Amino acid sequence: MPTSAASAKTGADGVFTSQLAVLAGEIEALLDRLLRPPPDSEIQPPARLLEAMRYAALGGGKRLRPFLLVETARLFDVGPAAALPAAAAIECIHTYSLIHDDLPAMDNDALRRGRPTLHMAFDEATAILAGDALLTLAFDLLARVETHPDAAVRVRLIAELGCAAGAAGMVGGQLLDLAAEGRFATAPRPGEADIARIDSLKTGALLRAACRMGAIIGNAPPDAGTAIDRYASALGQAFQIADDLLDAEGDPATVGKATGKDAAAGKATLVTLLGPQGARARLAALTAEAEAALAGFGDAASSLRAAAHFIAARRA
Amino acid sequence: MPTSAASAKTGADGVFTSQLAVLAGEIEALLDRLLRPPPDSEIQPPARLLEAMRYAALGGGKRLRPFLLVETARLFDVGPAAALPAAAAIECIHTYSLIHDDLPAMDNDALRRGRPTLHMAFDEATAILAGDALLTLAFDLLARVETHPDAAVRVRLIAELGCAAGAAGMVGGQLLDLAAEGRFATAPRPGEADIARIDSLKTGALLRAACRMGAIIGNAPPDAGTAIDRYASALGQAFQIADDLLDAEGDPATVGKATGKDAAAGKATLVTLLGPQGARARLAALTAEAEAALAGFGDAASSLRAAAHFIAARRA
Repeated sequence: MPTSAASAKTGADGVFTSQLAVLAGEIEALLDRLLRPPPDSEIQPPARLLEAMRYAALGGGKRLRPFLLVETARLFDVGPAAALPAAAAIECIHTYSLIHDDLPAMDNDALRRGRPTLHMAFDEATAILAGDALLTLAFDLLARVETHPDAAVRVRLIAELGCAAGAAGMVGGQLLDLAAEGRFATAPRPGEADIARIDSLKTGALLRAACRMGAIIGNAPPDAGTAIDRYASALGQAFQIADDLLDAEGDPATVGKATGKDAAAGKATLVTLLGPQGARARLAALTAEAEAALAGFGDAASSLRAAAHFIAARRA
Repeated sequence: MPTSAASAKTGADGVFTSQLAVLAGEIEALLDRLLRPPPDSEIQPPARLLEAMRYAALGGGKRLRPFLLVETARLFDVGPAAALPAAAAIECIHTYSLIHDDLPAMDNDALRRGRPTLHMAFDEATAILAGDALLTLAFDLLARVETHPDAAVRVRLIAELGCAAGAAGMVGGQLLDLAAEGRFATAPRPGEADIARIDSLKTGALLRAACRMGAIIGNAPPDAGTAIDRYASALGQAFQIADDLLDAEGDPATVGKATGKDAAAGKATLVTLLGPQGARARLAALTAEAEAALAGFGDAASSLRAAAHFIAARRA
């Protein structure tokens, strides 16, 4: 969708871009508060560990998962303030996953968001531990009463995130992704169904969890939950295709990380499988599917619709 | 306490050893069930990831943290079955911490419990991900209704474990431990207070959490909770001294992992600081302190008392 880039700052897209920036600022401020030495505690985290966690977590980023969580909760008349702690928790999970994925033993990336990755800026041991600490912090946050007054809602949030982030979700997806690069010397070259499964776990699971956690906080009725699931599933697939297109065609200076990696690794993606034109057509169909899933919500869902367009058109 | 080793299979110690073995068998069986492909789920974790998690989690181990949790809950008339899921969750945290600590970028250990460490048996990427998945699984488990019927109790368990395992707990302790080896080239040589802080976070936090989670499941009154804290704190310090003594004097074949590592790394521990005799005297004093903390519980606490003696006398 090359035309969307040009219009990204006007009309509905312009409204979306500023909404996203406002929420990103709120998440940044909350993470900044959460990642300070506790003022009234005898037990302090090591300064170096906290610095490393701050380097990774406060390094900008679009804060797309928090946005999806907050905007889904808003569909059910829950304001952003009530959804922010859970949104910060899912961003902690996303941040930890980037730290660990960038490690030399994994994707071996030196650049992330235009800056050295955490293990380059600090060292590998600190990066592993900062990732572990952020992963742990996510669940610590969700257990706190500030996240939601009702403990039953908090455990539903924890169960949702635990499931999406674990072996049958994001972590499993990262392992399958490494396998698809031939890393374990056992896997056959993946076909389209395999790639869809990898993408669904690796990036889809957490994007879906963001929406589902918003629905949990909003106490969404079952039929609304089904519509949200359909939206999130299409969005997750679209996100991964856009990501693969960026890797295939993006400029590292704009994208903020190395590109051309899939081709260099001889890795099959939907872009290599369908070709860039075919991938763009699939992306457009998924965006339409995401929009259609939101039909029942009317104007209240305009920011979630704009998020789908933003994902399809993103250049970084 | 060299004499305790000889009596480890007789009398009170013999009862303890069989109690520990029974509980270890139950934890092993529960982890075995939890780490199978979900029978009725469309979304399956990758086989390789599950194998790696099973290799690490089902590799034996004393299951001391589960024992402390179950026996503390029992003080308040909660039977073992009701405490087992939470006990499995804390063992998942312990297992992940061993996997990540053994990594080349961390302690670089090739042997654990007499077998190749996970990254040696599989590879580094799989080991990082299996650790992440076990860490995530711990919280996933605690959020489940099988762990406790009351959601308010489940979030208290999650908060307790999240706090003990995170930046101001176990993960922070591991970073301080690496710093004490001069890994980050910034830290001064640690004194006794620094070493006590490292030990308190690195191993103490999770042992304390085990006892405190047992107290939460048992709905312990505040004064009992204070006594449990005092017991657990002494036990945690004793555990680390015994561990350092094993490293200084143990036989790798018996211990099941490399020994002599602290001396080789020029690392200060309470054993290097106080000398073996001084360390043994401190260990005896801490064991007495742990026993004294349990005075109010009478015979009901005999297994927790035996655990303190077992820790002081352990040879592996």
